Amino acid sequence: MQNLLTDIATAAASNPDKGSVATYIPELADIDPKQFGISVALANGDVFCAGDADTPFSIQSVSKVFALALALGHVGDQLWNRVGREPSGLSFDSILLLEREDGIPRNPFINAGALVTTDTYLSGSSPREALAALLRFMRAAADDDSIHINEDVAKSEIATGHRNFSLAHYLASHGNMRNPVDKVLGTYCHQCAVEMSCRQLALAGRFLVDSPAMPTLVSFERRRRINALMMTCGHYDGSGDFAFRVGMPGKSGVGGGILVISPGRAAIAVWSPGLNRYGNSKLGTEAMESFAHSTGWSVFGVPHPG
Amino acid sequence: MQNLLTDIATAAASNPDKGSVATYIPELADIDPKQFGISVALANGDVFCAGDADTPFSIQSVSKVFALALALGHVGDQLWNRVGREPSGLSFDSILLLEREDGIPRNPFINAGALVTTDTYLSGSSPREALAALLRFMRAAADDDSIHINEDVAKSEIATGHRNFSLAHYLASHGNMRNPVDKVLGTYCHQCAVEMSCRQLALAGRFLVDSPAMPTLVSFERRRRINALMMTCGHYDGSGDFAFRVGMPGKSGVGGGILVISPGRAAIAVWSPGLNRYGNSKLGTEAMESFAHSTGWSVFGVPHPG
Amino acid sequence: MQNLLTDIATAAASNPDKGSVATYIPELADIDPKQFGISVALANGDVFCAGDADTPFSIQSVSKVFALALALGHVGDQLWNRVGREPSGLSFDSILLLEREDGIPRNPFINAGALVTTDTYLSGSSPREALAALLRFMRAAADDDSIHINEDVAKSEIATGHRNFSLAHYLASHGNMRNPVDKVLGTYCHQCAVEMSCRQLALAGRFLVDSPAMPTLVSFERRRRINALMMTCGHYDGSGDFAFRVGMPGKSGVGGGILVISPGRAAIAVWSPGLNRYGNSKLGTEAMESFAHSTGWSVFGVPHPG
Amino acid sequence: MQNLLTDIATAAASNPDKGSVATYIPELADIDPKQFGISVALANGDVFCAGDADTPFSIQSVSKVFALALALGHVGDQLWNRVGREPSGLSFDSILLLEREDGIPRNPFINAGALVTTDTYLSGSSPREALAALLRFMRAAADDDSIHINEDVAKSEIATGHRNFSLAHYLASHGNMRNPVDKVLGTYCHQCAVEMSCRQLALAGRFLVDSPAMPTLVSFERRRRINALMMTCGHYDGSGDFAFRVGMPGKSGVGGGILVISPGRAAIAVWSPGLNRYGNSKLGTEAMESFAHSTGWSVFGVPHPG
Repeated sequence: MQNLLTDIATAAASNPDKGSVATYIPELADIDPKQFGISVALANGDVFCAGDADTPFSIQSVSKVFALALALGHVGDQLWNRVGREPSGLSFDSILLLEREDGIPRNPFINAGALVTTDTYLSGSSPREALAALLRFMRAAADDDSIHINEDVAKSEIATGHRNFSLAHYLASHGNMRNPVDKVLGTYCHQCAVEMSCRQLALAGRFLVDSPAMPTLVSFERRRRINALMMTCGHYDGSGDFAFRVGMPGKSGVGGGILVISPGRAAIAVWSPGLNRYGNSKLGTEAMESFAHSTGWSVFGVPHPG
Repeated sequence: MQNLLTDIATAAASNPDKGSVATYIPELADIDPKQFGISVALANGDVFCAGDADTPFSIQSVSKVFALALALGHVGDQLWNRVGREPSGLSFDSILLLEREDGIPRNPFINAGALVTTDTYLSGSSPREALAALLRFMRAAADDDSIHINEDVAKSEIATGHRNFSLAHYLASHGNMRNPVDKVLGTYCHQCAVEMSCRQLALAGRFLVDSPAMPTLVSFERRRRINALMMTCGHYDGSGDFAFRVGMPGKSGVGGGILVISPGRAAIAVWSPGLNRYGNSKLGTEAMESFAHSTGWSVFGVPHPG
Repeated sequence: MQNLLTDIATAAASNPDKGSVATYIPELADIDPKQFGISVALANGDVFCAGDADTPFSIQSVSKVFALALALGHVGDQLWNRVGREPSGLSFDSILLLEREDGIPRNPFINAGALVTTDTYLSGSSPREALAALLRFMRAAADDDSIHINEDVAKSEIATGHRNFSLAHYLASHGNMRNPVDKVLGTYCHQCAVEMSCRQLALAGRFLVDSPAMPTLVSFERRRRINALMMTCGHYDGSGDFAFRVGMPGKSGVGGGILVISPGRAAIAVWSPGLNRYGNSKLGTEAMESFAHSTGWSVFGVPHPG
Repeated sequence: MQNLLTDIATAAASNPDKGSVATYIPELADIDPKQFGISVALANGDVFCAGDADTPFSIQSVSKVFALALALGHVGDQLWNRVGREPSGLSFDSILLLEREDGIPRNPFINAGALVTTDTYLSGSSPREALAALLRFMRAAADDDSIHINEDVAKSEIATGHRNFSLAHYLASHGNMRNPVDKVLGTYCHQCAVEMSCRQLALAGRFLVDSPAMPTLVSFERRRRINALMMTCGHYDGSGDFAFRVGMPGKSGVGGGILVISPGRAAIAVWSPGLNRYGNSKLGTEAMESFAHSTGWSVFGVPHPG
């Protein structure tokens, strides 16, 4: 495993086409695109790393996985009355289908759906309390209390996030926001601004793996379903492509991170800031394709764990 | 396994809400909605059946899986220049995204994409020859030479299939049809009119399972990818829901059949003519949810084969 | 003319189907739907009235005509770089085409386009100053200093106008807002909350008529063009129907008012709070159809002024 | 008038940017783009011409105006149950709104709506008879029996018109085609292949003018309404722009012809094969803008006929 990760990191370093760093969040626009890290946290507790695996980055939309688990913990399957479970076929911030479908977002991993998720776990508490609960969940999963929110990134997103404000007001106009729009958006932008390294993210991701080495944070049934959503919806309108090439459930963020789950085996975190045309990490996706090919961990292949 | 299937068939028989039989294909409108069959063909060659598992039905869009394998055998990955690999987020016969995306269908499992697939495996031969090759493939997979095409259903679909004619001409207007439209549609309607029983379909589906009990018809890599496409796109705009509830790749047909793959373990065929709102078999979907729950065969759970 | 208006008002009073009062603006939901007024201000200065022609009502989107004139006065044809001149084919608050067309609203008479108009005439001044300029323009046109803004309606719209906030943030996300979103929306909601009676609105509308009885407020060329926009875009996705039935340029508001122009002859204002399915006054539209039939003032008929 | 037309033709000849000739109809792709003709047929019977006003060209979609009059003559206002009266906001051959609106085309001047119109006047007769009736109507209006159909153009359009076949089958799938699709398309393509010179088209267009110099072919009410439809829908998604710049009802064709009506005054035909981005004649549109400016014939200006 260590050799595989080292080879993948070496290949990434020598790849001249690193994609384009997202520029619409000013605080992220200056990131050095040459960085690349990868970590694998096995179910048995072992962790393997290569490249810049200990450099913290903004996990952005990868946070939607943790937020979904938290929201389901609050209201259970009632969440599905307010958000769907289908791929959207459109980009992460599209508002098109919202109009066709009366303000019910397609799934919890596009921005509109994630705003409903945030609105759900926020319910009945202050943004500070809700974010504290989210961090508690992440820290417990990773067994690492140093995971934190980057306030500058959060503020930058609040100041420039007109598209998210547009989506939230649209949801509110359809009665699909319970809390004041500004409060939900403030919480949402802080949630996106959580920072982790690959090592931390892989460790935190084990709550979806069924790992005997850590306490159970969500039930088997719920874990299975979150993994299913990551497979069909985790990469926006590049979800089908990721399933085709990698064959494992994953969730990407515009900061260049991807969390991938191999059920029963491991959580993998990969990070490289340059994005492909779907808004997913370019080198990260290629690294995962190579990783899946070498390990045979695609859920669509033969299920004999190594 | 036999007990499980018998229980599932019994539960289906006593469920009063059997969905609605598709009426837009006249030849299928008169089917008795009370029928239900299920078959499991294990990788080792064993087959288990319950209910009306030996009654032939029109496999309709389930044929798209076999057609895709055949087309990939002809042109390989060049197929992906003409058809995408993403969920469409819309119904099976939608023309909306075609207009947004210059005549490139979203995936090979919606009608527009399947027409491109048919156009591909048809290339360079007559419809009769192409359909003979398709039947040869299906018969070899199922090891059953009695699989055939229902000519009456094919003719009925040709006579009433204005939506498919519309899609095909639309593709042609974008230069994404190589053969004459009428020839492609004739072949396509015959392909959809293949009849199989659950037993036959489960056996035929093993080509996606990695079964040592049968010859390899497609490479491991291609099998894995077809399974991925079935997971993200196999149930139209209900694909996410099927992944969420069942957690295995599957492909449904408007005749009420569903083929489901448990990689390395088994192919499962279920059939009941009544459809849910997405156009997928209602009892069939519920039966597969129950089956997945009992067996733990979701690819998103722990991958220890029974 | 007086007899015609009296007949029309009588017919409206006896029509049992008065449409549905808009409920999404709380302050307007309680209006008595039985009210109906009509006024004709001839080019020569004569005014004829019938029904509740002196009852003030919320002109709502009719204000977009005055706002457009004001914005064109500020920046001239540069406005057309930020907003189109085509019918949208969709409802007044749709966000669909904005996504297809990179944040350029279809025309200045749908909400998104009107927000750009407000942003334009607001530029370089405070909301208070900008609204004062708008009122000055309206009062000068009507020669009536009592025209005012209903603060309660404005506040109600700001508190509940999530759809407009969504549109404005969407425009801002495409760089098509120069002023802060909150400032534009505050101004916009006040602009919509202007109150006039039919008599006042007909008088004010004469600036589009070419009336020798009043000073010229906008050039002939601009007047002609604003009238053209009212014809093709003045009634949202009911614009074609209004042109077909009435044949004169007009602009409707969700408060039930319609301003109609007969070039060279007269400005007509009609008001009845109940709306048809396009969001335009039901009795108002029918009254204008009857008026056009009786007068022969359709611009598509023979152009011999009475 | 003669001097004005000569000046306009001279200006057109010296304009280096003549737009792009439509290439999707092979028979039209070879037309010399330098040609330009204009004719004005006054209500009193006088005709003025300049440029290539006697060169026949393919009127293409301008035929939709005559087809609409013929269809309304057959079924009257029942036509409006099968086709709308609203601008589509999309290009001439879009299929998008058909899907949103259950197979009811937006208006009779986009291709989908014109197919319904053809289906309507075809009803109960052979294509040969129906086309003979259409030619009789055009010849009577122009008082010229030499108007004819170019068979080569018709055949070329049938052979390559996949988009129209797609639209027609789509309509049929919604039950909005009464005749067999092939029959309607054959008739439609012949209708589009009518050839006229500017002189002939201007003369034929007088049936919409209210000209005492010719027999009344359609009632005043119907004429007024057809003019309204030409204003709001006559130039596809460039209709608003044409109304804004020219201010008279008009209908364009992809062959480069435009028929414009000045109610009570004249019919104007202009032709130049190069198209602008909306698919309307570029020089033709500019010539009409100049013509409207010089004559003051905009219906949105002061209605004092010269």
